[in-house]
Amino acid sequence: MEREIIELFKRHLKLQGDLPLGDDAGAIRLGDEWVVATNDMLVRKTDVPDIMTPEQVGFKVVTMNVSDIAAMGARPVGFLFSLGVPQDIEMEYLEGVAEGIGKALEFYEVPVLSADTNEADDLIIDGIALGRTKRLLTRSGAKPGDLVCVTGDIGRALAGLLVWRRGLDVPEKIREPIYEKLLEPRARVQEGIELSGVANAAIDISDGLSKELHLLAEMSGVRIEVEAQKLPIRDEVGAVAEALGLDPIEMALASGEEFELIFTIPASLLDECPVRCTVIGRVLEGAGVYITIDGKRQEMPVLGWEHLNWGVKGTYRTMFR
Amino acid sequence: MEREIIELFKRHLKLQGDLPLGDDAGAIRLGDEWVVATNDMLVRKTDVPDIMTPEQVGFKVVTMNVSDIAAMGARPVGFLFSLGVPQDIEMEYLEGVAEGIGKALEFYEVPVLSADTNEADDLIIDGIALGRTKRLLTRSGAKPGDLVCVTGDIGRALAGLLVWRRGLDVPEKIREPIYEKLLEPRARVQEGIELSGVANAAIDISDGLSKELHLLAEMSGVRIEVEAQKLPIRDEVGAVAEALGLDPIEMALASGEEFELIFTIPASLLDECPVRCTVIGRVLEGAGVYITIDGKRQEMPVLGWEHLNWGVKGTYRTMFR
Repeated sequence: MEREIIELFKRHLKLQGDLPLGDDAGAIRLGDEWVVATNDMLVRKTDVPDIMTPEQVGFKVVTMNVSDIAAMGARPVGFLFSLGVPQDIEMEYLEGVAEGIGKALEFYEVPVLSADTNEADDLIIDGIALGRTKRLLTRSGAKPGDLVCVTGDIGRALAGLLVWRRGLDVPEKIREPIYEKLLEPRARVQEGIELSGVANAAIDISDGLSKELHLLAEMSGVRIEVEAQKLPIRDEVGAVAEALGLDPIEMALASGEEFELIFTIPASLLDECPVRCTVIGRVLEGAGVYITIDGKRQEMPVLGWEHLNWGVKGTYRTMFR
Repeated sequence: MEREIIELFKRHLKLQGDLPLGDDAGAIRLGDEWVVATNDMLVRKTDVPDIMTPEQVGFKVVTMNVSDIAAMGARPVGFLFSLGVPQDIEMEYLEGVAEGIGKALEFYEVPVLSADTNEADDLIIDGIALGRTKRLLTRSGAKPGDLVCVTGDIGRALAGLLVWRRGLDVPEKIREPIYEKLLEPRARVQEGIELSGVANAAIDISDGLSKELHLLAEMSGVRIEVEAQKLPIRDEVGAVAEALGLDPIEMALASGEEFELIFTIPASLLDECPVRCTVIGRVLEGAGVYITIDGKRQEMPVLGWEHLNWGVKGTYRTMFR
């Protein structure tokens, strides 16, 4: 239904900003700078696993919004939020959320600009972040000759979700790092700011690496080739995959809410790349996304948030219900 | 509970913008300009009278946000929104909302920068507006010697609400103008931009004239005196008040969601005031808000959104339930 709703609204919203809709954030020009803005709503019932503390919920609302600002190569400069609060909410829960938001704003060094509260049937937190940058990183800037890079590692968020959801018994030294990524992800804010100077395109991993790569290829009008063996997948993800009989590469491609940045950078600038990252592939002329596994090149399936369905009924999102 | 929640969050949110929280919108400095940002959530169940069409709902979400931008003396430059959508929503209703938002953005000439959609138990629309201005109009800028002015007329929104809520039978020539204000209010965007050059302070009427005047007096550290006979109250409001045995002045003081601007301006600049308005009082040294009725000066009660309780159980807000 989400796609249907988006199409419906697009038909009626003709006036758009200085950047077409469809990027990590919207943008308007102000003098020689860009102001970027994004919003992302969290609904307790559908978006929050029951092992998540209210502090983690509050922190995550900030993270998921500043991550989109970082993906535009912008420095976050303001946060706003609207609360929908059920009448029977436990005040300690709300206090935890407030604490989490407060800690996140200090962590990311972002001031709160405005807040609104209303009565609603379920706890709803709509987060909004503003950022500024002299040079915008879009999803449409990837160029043939660029290298495709990713910060951090991928797959732990989904591994954590599956361990929790299936009640899988894993050693603490595996559970701890994957739950950390599931419950306390951090946005790559400093990396986004630094990449603004050198990268050609960027996107953050909200819906899974494969889905983001397809968006990048499509919006940039290029072909992307990735090598599976280069994907930064930690051993803990491999261990969970093995225990569940899943393919760790597919898990890494599908894992959403990683909040790592995927970016493309001219090969000649790699030495000057200011952030720690892994080169996972390259940009070519053409179209589509391809992955080479064991020397065999194949089209990369669009796995991700909405498509994950390995023995878990419904989508990634509905897995929380 | 709203006040309790606000206090709870304030304790945890230490990092604020270049303007303290508590104004119509938040603000940050960007070069020689201010970027202002505000958010306001609408919940169908509690905020929407059943006579309101989905187009009117969509339009109003934009109006209530750009009105806050106008009250800062800023030009709206971007709109964002997050939707919470119940699974059983009628698509025609959603289409109406989309149409209303689209029409409002064209009416106010504001581009949409970003949108997000989620599943929720009730229809929820969180609107966010951005604006820019060289000179900020705050709630704290009123100075002794200023005149207090208001755009348009006041009282029709509440008159309309009471007529609808009590099923009052009124002639069409009364119903039409008061329902227009209740269902299709318009923000004073052009006025806000023009006032930026001359006014000392401004606030929009969201919660009722009396409540806004008290905020203005308190945040500016001044005394405000208003003359009841100068309040711009239309005859239709008087007619409804009479039919219901209410005082039209109290109705005008309590009527919320008028989206008119209250502003203060040095008396010497009144001739140059670029917007049509009514002078309703003046700013003096001291504290408090006073109103003169029939030659008798008295403290103005804080009537408004949360305090309206004339034979209608609960508050203005709960009247929709």
